Amino acid sequence: MPALSIDLNADLGESYGRWTLDDAALLDVVTSANVACGFHAGDPLTMRGTVALAAGRGVVIGAHPSYPDLIGFGRRELAASPEQIEADVLYQIGALQGVCAAAGTRVRFVKPHGALYNRAARDRVAADAIVAAVRAADPTLVVLALAGGELVRAAERAGLRAVAEAFVDRGYRADGTLVPRGDPGALLEDADAVAARALRMVRDGVVQAVDGTDVPVAPGSLCTHGDGPLALALARAVRRRLEGAGIRVAPFAG
Amino acid sequence: MPALSIDLNADLGESYGRWTLDDAALLDVVTSANVACGFHAGDPLTMRGTVALAAGRGVVIGAHPSYPDLIGFGRRELAASPEQIEADVLYQIGALQGVCAAAGTRVRFVKPHGALYNRAARDRVAADAIVAAVRAADPTLVVLALAGGELVRAAERAGLRAVAEAFVDRGYRADGTLVPRGDPGALLEDADAVAARALRMVRDGVVQAVDGTDVPVAPGSLCTHGDGPLALALARAVRRRLEGAGIRVAPFAG
Amino acid sequence: MPALSIDLNADLGESYGRWTLDDAALLDVVTSANVACGFHAGDPLTMRGTVALAAGRGVVIGAHPSYPDLIGFGRRELAASPEQIEADVLYQIGALQGVCAAAGTRVRFVKPHGALYNRAARDRVAADAIVAAVRAADPTLVVLALAGGELVRAAERAGLRAVAEAFVDRGYRADGTLVPRGDPGALLEDADAVAARALRMVRDGVVQAVDGTDVPVAPGSLCTHGDGPLALALARAVRRRLEGAGIRVAPFAG
Amino acid sequence: MPALSIDLNADLGESYGRWTLDDAALLDVVTSANVACGFHAGDPLTMRGTVALAAGRGVVIGAHPSYPDLIGFGRRELAASPEQIEADVLYQIGALQGVCAAAGTRVRFVKPHGALYNRAARDRVAADAIVAAVRAADPTLVVLALAGGELVRAAERAGLRAVAEAFVDRGYRADGTLVPRGDPGALLEDADAVAARALRMVRDGVVQAVDGTDVPVAPGSLCTHGDGPLALALARAVRRRLEGAGIRVAPFAG
Repeated sequence: MPALSIDLNADLGESYGRWTLDDAALLDVVTSANVACGFHAGDPLTMRGTVALAAGRGVVIGAHPSYPDLIGFGRRELAASPEQIEADVLYQIGALQGVCAAAGTRVRFVKPHGALYNRAARDRVAADAIVAAVRAADPTLVVLALAGGELVRAAERAGLRAVAEAFVDRGYRADGTLVPRGDPGALLEDADAVAARALRMVRDGVVQAVDGTDVPVAPGSLCTHGDGPLALALARAVRRRLEGAGIRVAPFAG
Repeated sequence: MPALSIDLNADLGESYGRWTLDDAALLDVVTSANVACGFHAGDPLTMRGTVALAAGRGVVIGAHPSYPDLIGFGRRELAASPEQIEADVLYQIGALQGVCAAAGTRVRFVKPHGALYNRAARDRVAADAIVAAVRAADPTLVVLALAGGELVRAAERAGLRAVAEAFVDRGYRADGTLVPRGDPGALLEDADAVAARALRMVRDGVVQAVDGTDVPVAPGSLCTHGDGPLALALARAVRRRLEGAGIRVAPFAG
Repeated sequence: MPALSIDLNADLGESYGRWTLDDAALLDVVTSANVACGFHAGDPLTMRGTVALAAGRGVVIGAHPSYPDLIGFGRRELAASPEQIEADVLYQIGALQGVCAAAGTRVRFVKPHGALYNRAARDRVAADAIVAAVRAADPTLVVLALAGGELVRAAERAGLRAVAEAFVDRGYRADGTLVPRGDPGALLEDADAVAARALRMVRDGVVQAVDGTDVPVAPGSLCTHGDGPLALALARAVRRRLEGAGIRVAPFAG
Repeated sequence: MPALSIDLNADLGESYGRWTLDDAALLDVVTSANVACGFHAGDPLTMRGTVALAAGRGVVIGAHPSYPDLIGFGRRELAASPEQIEADVLYQIGALQGVCAAAGTRVRFVKPHGALYNRAARDRVAADAIVAAVRAADPTLVVLALAGGELVRAAERAGLRAVAEAFVDRGYRADGTLVPRGDPGALLEDADAVAARALRMVRDGVVQAVDGTDVPVAPGSLCTHGDGPLALALARAVRRRLEGAGIRVAPFAG
């Protein structure tokens, strides 16, 4: 029986000019990096630095495109048309491809950011627009998306590989959706509990929902938060626990 | 004796969202299009439209990267560091490469825009930074630059092909530099005179300076302005005159 | 019996840097100018020019605040929080007040732009946020808003004067709402029909809906479009018709 | 003999959306706050928060206008025209005035930021443009500027009050100018040395230059850095030392 293997991903490169979100240490823990492409964070020089750090550690690089919204960090839903979404995603993937080419590496996957990520999970037209951009940029790109969402289906319709992710430190509801930020149980902060949860997700294919029931999950990647000392501690605890249980932590792509 | 051949280039795709600079008609006249990449003009959807129009006509596509300055249209000198310039140019080339890939075409050359173009002609460090970005993005890209400027030399040092351009409707000084905008004789607006000037540049390798002397030029491309009814009329007159004299109007790259 | 009087307003100052939407001629026709404040259009220098032109003609100046969205021209709904909306509107009103102070004039009213205008008409919380900003900036400011919408009610709750506007070249439905852009009958382009419609609105207090019924309206201002030769022709026709019928065209504020 | 008095100023409100530069603690130490106005930092919601904190502590509020350059944090020289500078500064002062009005307080002074500050010290035309904007916005505003620079002279020519500042943690050259960042001796980091230096500046009117000579200074305000734990420690040490020597720390305006 082969050893289980799982990917760990985090949002990285989310500094902007003078403002820094320190994420270098996290690159020693995760295996896939969702790199901001300038629309919600990540000016070109920041992108170069993040790509160099990731490539130096063998971390697989993905584009993390967003709505154009620096002030809102891409977290505000924007009524962009499907044509605008497709063009914006294509532009951002291309920009990161350029940066990667200069570093002797490649973009391997795409994961939308923030409000665009959420829209892609529930809006088929937006999901198709994103997939059209991904496919046009490079049909070997993998789409990293919310398990069970429209983006997974859109990728599969288009013949692209989709990888579903689970969130190690977010609360789940009994129907498999996330507890909205701000509601009780939305965020878990105890490293031990988070690590145990991650292990159950991968080994047993379940996560305990806020009502106590077990919900099935089948993640190809586990998402950890990208910023702050707590995020780093959680990610490290998750990795230690998984590896301690004999699970290999390795990128899904590359 | 082989027929003479010359390229005609113009800045295109310089709309931005709601604001349009109409340039479709010019794509029937020029053979190379310098496509804005979002930093001084050219939002992603505009880029897609321009690339589709150019590709449909066989017009060769070049990236037209700029300082980040929408309000100033990239015409204001900005004290960006060489590292910032390199990263900004790389980002913009990549973004246009993504847009081109989706249209089944390619970026073939790079010509900096506005204040960055002027700086690249006189500042060796900036020129090297631009060339480093071009080369890293794709070493087969051609650099289109001011004749005799630092950018030509930087490209050649790096082993890239450089093509020098002359301006059909700008006044020249006896030393081969352009009459600054705003000075008498800076701009020519008579289509007949401009066309005659273009022909002399290509056939005879000279242009008459404002002091009446003839200055040698050896352009690989002629630049025409990108916007307005006058620009279109001048470009058409130039092309007619060149072709009437048996000169082939054809792209320098592709 | 006193003569009837009505205001004509239009969106103005919607150039941005290199890109111009020509609106000077319209300032000879309208009596109130909704001046863009930099978030969807209107860089600071453009604002100064528009304010100078308006002040020179005695056109009353209003702030036309928007979501921050240059690419989308403020026409895309954005999930900004009430706190962000209040701060954004306050910032934009203040900026225009500064520009007006320098021109020896004042901001007299506020009319939200685009998607924010539409949201303010239907979303009470957003409407209250806008009104809080207006009141904090200057409690003598008038709020110009869609007739019957939440913004009118929010202004009245806060003790501010609200003026309702009607649209001379937009189709109405039997319930008094506008025919959405893109639907049949959404836009009227015949100057004569538009002028006749404007006159009925003011003199008779009705507008004919797309189903043929008459809908009551009681506008304090008539909105005309801000850009293009057609907009200018329509605005002129409206003004001529109103004045020909003995109705005074005059600002609602000032 | 009256007690000596001196102002302490710092750059504040330099967060932007998701990115925070923590500066609340510094507002307990300084007496004047240079508040970013959105062009290099300081989105509208950040501005409101900073103004509320400052007003609550009796810290005097100044506008800190910049070139439009978020990526470069306003530290890159930009070839803006005098007309653009005047309009940009006017816009930013107005925006902060709006925010202050809503908080029941006022803007009392203006200090340009970064590259604009440096240009204003050496470029008379730019200095005049800034002063024209300040005066037009409110002729009672004080101009806070580099001692001996063009901006001081421009303010005085226009009949505005100018206050010159000295830098407690920057090295000086024998001619009274600052040691450029990056050169040896440019930055002082020892709290005790910085505090002693501040006291000599105020009590004795001199600062020791890098060559050991004493240079005369006559500051109306002392500038401390705005960000980071070190900045806070230096500012606290300066204030303690000054007050320990019987010098009153109080705003120059208000």
